[in-house]
Amino acid sequence: MDYKSLIKSVPDFPIPGVLFRDISPLLGDGVALQSMLEDFSKKMDLKSVDSFVGIESRGFILAAALASHCGKGFIPLRKAGKLPPPFVSEKCKLEYGEAVLEIRPGSGKVILIDDVLATGGTLQAGLNICEKAGFEVQDIFVLINLRFLNKFKWRAGEVKSLIQYD
Amino acid sequence: MDYKSLIKSVPDFPIPGVLFRDISPLLGDGVALQSMLEDFSKKMDLKSVDSFVGIESRGFILAAALASHCGKGFIPLRKAGKLPPPFVSEKCKLEYGEAVLEIRPGSGKVILIDDVLATGGTLQAGLNICEKAGFEVQDIFVLINLRFLNKFKWRAGEVKSLIQYD
Repeated sequence: MDYKSLIKSVPDFPIPGVLFRDISPLLGDGVALQSMLEDFSKKMDLKSVDSFVGIESRGFILAAALASHCGKGFIPLRKAGKLPPPFVSEKCKLEYGEAVLEIRPGSGKVILIDDVLATGGTLQAGLNICEKAGFEVQDIFVLINLRFLNKFKWRAGEVKSLIQYD
Repeated sequence: MDYKSLIKSVPDFPIPGVLFRDISPLLGDGVALQSMLEDFSKKMDLKSVDSFVGIESRGFILAAALASHCGKGFIPLRKAGKLPPPFVSEKCKLEYGEAVLEIRPGSGKVILIDDVLATGGTLQAGLNICEKAGFEVQDIFVLINLRFLNKFKWRAGEVKSLIQYD
C-alpha cells in the first residue's frame, strides 16, 4: 500500500522550520490501518514478545493497535507527571525541545514503538528507560523514519520502519 | 473476566482527594486486553460505524486497540496545540482542572471512546466537538464509569462501560 499518499506534510508546525508529518489520514482509514498493522507484524519476530511499549501520545496509538493485532500487552511510556508511583524517569532531547519520560517498573520482552524517528532523542531515552525499568527491548519500530534528520542506530542496528523519507 | 482485579486504585493522585484508577495492569496483560476488546465489541453495533474517536491520551489506547480489533479507522481528539490546522476547538471542565480539546473536521459515523467517565465534562465536550466537526456520534463507550461522581446522560441514554464503581 502507498502509505505516503495518506500522510499529509504540514510546513512550519509546531514551530517554524519543522515539516510536520500528519498521519491522521492513514489512521482514519480502517483498511489502511489494518494493512499497516499487518505489514508491521510481518516484520516482527513476535514469538517471545510480551508487550508493546508505546511512547506518549502518538506512540500510544500505534502500540495499542499493534497489541490488539498481535495479541500482546500494551505498556505506556508517559510524559512526566501522568503515572502514579512507582516509576522510573529519563530525560530526552527532542527535535524541538526537551521532555521527561516515565514508565512503571516491569519485566519481559518488549517492542518499543513510536510514530516518527526524527533525531532519535526520544527513542534513545525510551530504550534507556525501558532497560532501567527491567524490560528487555527486543526491537524498535516506528511508522516513519526521517532519515535526513538522523543516523540513529542502537545495538540491533537500524530502527525498523514502514515509511522512510531520505 | 474480573477486570476490577486488574485495576489498581491509587489514593490522592494526581491531586489530594482523587482516587486514581490505574488501568496499566489490565492493558499490560495481552489475554485480558483481548478479552476486554471482545467484550467491548459485543456491546457495539458496528455495521455502519466508520471510526473510533479516542480522547487524548488514555482514550487513544482504547480507541486504537478497538479500531484494530474491529477493522475501523481511528481519529484522535487531541489536547490543544497538537493538531495542525484546520481544526475545531471545545473547552471542557474536568474532574480536576480544565482543558481544551481539538479535532480535525471530518464526516461519518463514529464511536467516542475514553478510559474513565468521572464528572462527564470531557465526554460532553468530546460529543460537542465531534458534532461541530461534522461527525455523527453513534455511541459513547468508556472502560470505567465512576457512577458515584456523575449522573451523566446524553441523547442515547447512559454511557456504556465495561466496569462500574457505584
